[in-house]
This record gives sequence, C-alpha cells and structure tokens, in this order.
Amino acid sequence: MFIIAEEIYKSIELIRRQSPIVHNITNYVVMNSTANALLAIGASPVMAHAEEEVEEMVNIASALVINIGTLSERWIHSMFKAAHQARKKDIPIILDPVGAGATVYRTKTARDLINNELPAIIRGNASEIMALYDDESRTKGVDSAASSDAAVDIAQKLSKIHKCVICVSGPTDYIIDKEKIMKIKNGHPLMSRVTGFGCTASALCGAFAAVEKIPFAATAKAMAVMGIAGEKAAGVSAGPGSLQTNFLDCLYCLSENDISQRLKVEA
Amino acid sequence: MFIIAEEIYKSIELIRRQSPIVHNITNYVVMNSTANALLAIGASPVMAHAEEEVEEMVNIASALVINIGTLSERWIHSMFKAAHQARKKDIPIILDPVGAGATVYRTKTARDLINNELPAIIRGNASEIMALYDDESRTKGVDSAASSDAAVDIAQKLSKIHKCVICVSGPTDYIIDKEKIMKIKNGHPLMSRVTGFGCTASALCGAFAAVEKIPFAATAKAMAVMGIAGEKAAGVSAGPGSLQTNFLDCLYCLSENDISQRLKVEA
Amino acid sequence: MFIIAEEIYKSIELIRRQSPIVHNITNYVVMNSTANALLAIGASPVMAHAEEEVEEMVNIASALVINIGTLSERWIHSMFKAAHQARKKDIPIILDPVGAGATVYRTKTARDLINNELPAIIRGNASEIMALYDDESRTKGVDSAASSDAAVDIAQKLSKIHKCVICVSGPTDYIIDKEKIMKIKNGHPLMSRVTGFGCTASALCGAFAAVEKIPFAATAKAMAVMGIAGEKAAGVSAGPGSLQTNFLDCLYCLSENDISQRLKVEA
Repeated sequence: MFIIAEEIYKSIELIRRQSPIVHNITNYVVMNSTANALLAIGASPVMAHAEEEVEEMVNIASALVINIGTLSERWIHSMFKAAHQARKKDIPIILDPVGAGATVYRTKTARDLINNELPAIIRGNASEIMALYDDESRTKGVDSAASSDAAVDIAQKLSKIHKCVICVSGPTDYIIDKEKIMKIKNGHPLMSRVTGFGCTASALCGAFAAVEKIPFAATAKAMAVMGIAGEKAAGVSAGPGSLQTNFLDCLYCLSENDISQRLKVEA
Repeated sequence: MFIIAEEIYKSIELIRRQSPIVHNITNYVVMNSTANALLAIGASPVMAHAEEEVEEMVNIASALVINIGTLSERWIHSMFKAAHQARKKDIPIILDPVGAGATVYRTKTARDLINNELPAIIRGNASEIMALYDDESRTKGVDSAASSDAAVDIAQKLSKIHKCVICVSGPTDYIIDKEKIMKIKNGHPLMSRVTGFGCTASALCGAFAAVEKIPFAATAKAMAVMGIAGEKAAGVSAGPGSLQTNFLDCLYCLSENDISQRLKVEA
Repeated sequence: MFIIAEEIYKSIELIRRQSPIVHNITNYVVMNSTANALLAIGASPVMAHAEEEVEEMVNIASALVINIGTLSERWIHSMFKAAHQARKKDIPIILDPVGAGATVYRTKTARDLINNELPAIIRGNASEIMALYDDESRTKGVDSAASSDAAVDIAQKLSKIHKCVICVSGPTDYIIDKEKIMKIKNGHPLMSRVTGFGCTASALCGAFAAVEKIPFAATAKAMAVMGIAGEKAAGVSAGPGSLQTNFLDCLYCLSENDISQRLKVEA
C-alpha cells in the first residue's frame, strides 16, 4: 500500500477549496494550536463542548475529532453525545486517546468511546494504543514509553475488532487496518518538544477525512503532511518555540513539490 | 464621521500610561492570545469566570469583555453576573457573539445578554450580527458566510433598538450606530487564517473603551489599530504562524507614524 | 547563600536526562505555554484536573504545580485532592497564588491550600505574597502593585509559619526562607508584557524541585534559568510576540556558558 505526493496534494487542494468544518472536542492545552493548524491547512475549525449545542455543531460539520487530553464528567457526556450524532449523520469520528493507560479514568473513557461510538480513525502513541487493548501496558504520562513493534501488533488486533484505522505515531508513523500497514518516516525529533503536535495530527486526520472518504488514505495523508511540514519547519527553527511558528507557516504554504521531495513511505 | 491618526495614537498612549484592567470572560481557545494582545497594547488583562469572584473582578476593572466562543451553563451564569455588576459600576460591556447563528444555544445566549445587559459595543462578523436580529440567517460555523451589506442594514436596526455601537467586521470593518457608519479598510486576508483575531479585536475594543468614553470612537480606534497592526505584521510574515507573533510585536511597537501612513477610513 | 552556574546547569542536565513528570493543575490561559516551557527545559508536563484522576496522576509525577489563575469549585476540589496525595507520596508541591488579593475567593483558596497542604515552594509577585499574610494589601488585578521590600518582610514571616520557601518575583527575584534571602537580578522588562511568564516560572520551580531535593536551591535555580533565558531571548526580540517564541528556543538551548556569563545573584 502506497500513497503518492500527487494524491496527498489533491486532498490539500480539496481542503483549501471546500474549507470543511472540523468539529473538535479537545483538551484545553491545545485548543489554540489545533485551531490554528486546521486554519493553516485550509479547514474551518469549530471548538464546542456544551451538551446543549454539540449535536447542532456536528450537524454542520464534516468530521468530528474527540481528544481526551483534559477530561471531566460533563465533557465526557458531550463527547458521547457528539459522537452519537456523528454516527447518525455518517461523518467520520477521529479519536485521540491522550494519556490512555496513565489513569483508569482515561483508559476507561477511551475504551467506552471505541466500543460504543465506532471511530473511523484512532491516533495515539504506542503506549496509548496498547492501553486501549488491555491493562498490561502503562503509560509514562502522555509520552510514549512502549515499543512500536508491540503496539503495531495490538493495533492490528484492535483494528480487526473495531473495524477502524489505527495510527501508532512516533519516529515512524504506522497506519494500520486489519489487512495492511503503511509506514511513514517523515517528521523530526524536535517535534516531541512541542506540546500538542500529536493532537494536531489527529485534527489533521479530521480535515483529510472530511474530503477523503477512505479512512486509511485520509490518515496516511494527514500523517505524511504532519511529518513533512514538521521536518521542513524544524530545518529552519532554532528550537521548539520557533518550530511551532514555522510549522504553521509550512502547513499553510505546503506545495506538491515539498511533498514529493520529502515523502518517505513504506508498505 | 472620521477619525484621525493623532486621536487614535492619543488613546494608545492613554492605554500604555494607565494600563487599564480589562476583565475578559472569554473562550478557552483564545484566552492566551487575547491576554497577550491586551498586554502588547499596554492594558492589564484579567481572565476570571468563577461566579464567586466575577463581581469583585468587575469592581477593579475599567471594561468588561464577554465572548461566547466556548459556552457552558456555569459560564453563562457568570457572564450575566459580571455584566450586571458592570452596569451597576457603569463600565462598558463589549460583547463578542462568537458563532451566533450556528446553534440555538449561542444565538439565545447572545440575544439574552443583549436584551438584559445592554452592551455598549457588539463586534462580530456578518453572520453573527445577522443572527442577533432574526432566525433567517445561518452561520457557517464561526466564519462569516453572510454578505456585509445585509449585515450592515441589520446592524443599524439593532443599534437603534439596543442603543449600542455595532461593528460588523470583515475585509471592511463597519462601525455602526443608529445615525452613522464608518468604514475601516485596514487589515490583511492572512488574518482570517489565524484563530481568534476576531476575539482579539473585541478585547481591544475593551481596552480602548476603558480610556475613550465614546463607544463609537473607541470601537473605530480599536478596529483601526487591529487592522493596521495586522497588515503591518502580514507584510513581514511567511504564513499564519509568524503573523501571530509579528502581530503582537507590531501592536507593542505601534507608532503614530504607522497609523497615519496606513489608516484607511471612510465615512 | 550563593548558587553557581555549574550547579544550575547540573540540574538542567538532570532534567534533560530524567525528563521528570511535572503534574500541573493550572489556569486555562497558560496551559499551552506552561507545557511548552516544561518540554523546552526537558521535563514531561502532565495537565490533568479531573477529581477522578488527579491522585493517579500525582502517583506517576515527581512534582505537583498548583496555579489558581482561573478558579472554579470543582478545580479547587481537585487541587486539594492532588495536593493531599502529593504529601502522602512526598513529592514537592509548588503553589502559584495568581491574583491572590484581587478577590476574596482567590485569597481564601490560596490561604487554605497553604494552611492545609503545606507547599514546599510558593512563588508570586509582591501583591500576591502580601495577600497571603493579611487583608491589608490589595492586588491590582494579577499585576504587582505592592513594593518588594514590604513583601520580603512578609514572605519571611510566612516562611517561618509555613516552613516553606517563598519567591517574591519581580525585577529582582527574592528567594526566601526563614533564615536566608537570595536575590536574583536576571530578567528583562519586556517579560512583563507576555502573559504567563510568572506561571512558567512556577512550573520551572516544579521541574527543578523534581531533581533537586532542597526547595530553596530548586527555586533559586528555576528563577535564575527563567531570568537568563528571558533576557537572552529579549535581546533578539522585536516585541512580546517574538519574545515568547525566542524564550522557548533559549530555554531549550541553554548552555552552561549562557548561565555563567549572565547569572546575577546576591546574598
């Protein structure tokens, strides 16, 4: 399974032209950077969490991104309500299980969302993905401590059970469904020193899933764009502060040439 | 109706000298960028939403900015409580009806605030302003889909009914009260690719209203400064990431010369 | 009492190597910039506030930072729960009493936390620290209006009563315990035009306290690093926007040489 630069760029052009509304119920830490990344790629971000309005927001959205980074009871309630409406409307749900494995509360919430609301795409680091499957693995906070190989095995099992695409992100991003694996090797180590790049990746999955109906392809395109913009930005950044700024600029300016020159994908 | 650079700059100097406290009850997405914009122009931002303390915060503030970008029941309760105290203390209330029209919840909250708490200034995009008047118009998320002309007509009606100044912002910013309209044509298209610039504009209305007692003039000055700092920053920015950074720098360094050279105002 | 560059840098190296988890219950405005500063210095930030999970998060953390910048009832409840667990686990608690003195609610919450949960370190500006002691002083919002001298006297009294280290920050940072005072004179006036630098300083106290067991030394090292990175960044910044960006870059790149050349400490 491959993707080519041309197809990735075609989706970017669709996002820029259609400016699809991506509804995010996400954590407080990254709301601003997530909204800015969605705007930079050309999408229309909406952030709304009140149970009184999430269904209506879903009704005008083309994708729903649920991120459990800073949970509380009322927010969880809204996440389920929004996800439920997204399924009714048949728009893709993207789940980012931030910190799954670190606390029972997060692990349980993530598993409940997966079991009941059938996300099309789940993106997390190795620890988080492993925590979705069983209680053996333990997250070191919200960083990834687990090995990618073990996580890929578990991701394939999860993918079969829940009929969804799973992305295990890290130095290599693995895009996984029940029968195939794609590896994307773009990105830069400095990206791990900026908060919320994982959350941004999940939000970009939402933007691509809004214009690309095949979840596997949407995830692969989003992760490739994330890594390419990140490594291009890192090349001109003195540290994590300027990386954040340059990443948004690169996302906004990304050309087909940038993609074809940098894309590192393996089947 | 005109404003001149000299008057705008005089207000900036007052803000820098007096450092008025601007109390914001605003959305999670923009709290950081709003506080930074207020600090950059020279004001003293306070962000506080607990019903236990909003009245006391209003008591030490010179303006109250209410922004409904991420609503929930308790926050709405605090918005009314703070607004009520602001009226008692006779400090100006600025309302930013983010996403009015997109959901019943937002539209109702915005209308209730206007009907009961009499804001001095309302700033929104064309869709949001139209949604305040009737149920005909519909917001495409938090972006503006409506035409400015229709919004200006409605803004004049609203201004008469509610005795407040209304700003319909967009490529041209219209500052409107029951008898006059001022057009400000500063700004740059790239600004629409950064989240929260609208919210920042409303917060600046608060800073200017703290030192300029005529709401129409305060709004015009704030929108001119917003547009001028934005277009100056855009001129040296590679994309929306650096625009955010440069905008704050430009706001901080804004000179009378910058204003007089760039100001584009029409009666 | 002195600190030397070599010792400060040794702690930075420990943070970079161990990447200690710093659990923050902090305000909405600064969550992103706080997490980014902790990542830039090499620590592992966790932001979690739900009462359902704060104890578990504390269990995997090496320091707990409590910041009362945007309070509400449920968050206060979680702050106490987390602090209680931190004491049980014997990890240091750092308290940032943002806006103490501005409202009864904040002052009371800060005092209750100090009386019941025994923070190892309290960092605030002069007004905030004075408000912790008695009702005479009054905060001008979240900015410091009080004189440093008066605050230092009060900080020494507080330090004796509560057996903790207190930092009164400002142009000169005073690190105080019952028997000694250290003055750090690093930093730059432009830092006061960026929101949340005070909160970042408190979070860095958490990172240093995670690797340096003497709270006085941890606080001194954190404040020195804060000031040195800030003044180095200010030297290449056109305003508060670029200062934010450059500060993170400088924090990330900070060398022993930077510290030894710039450190300004007085007993």
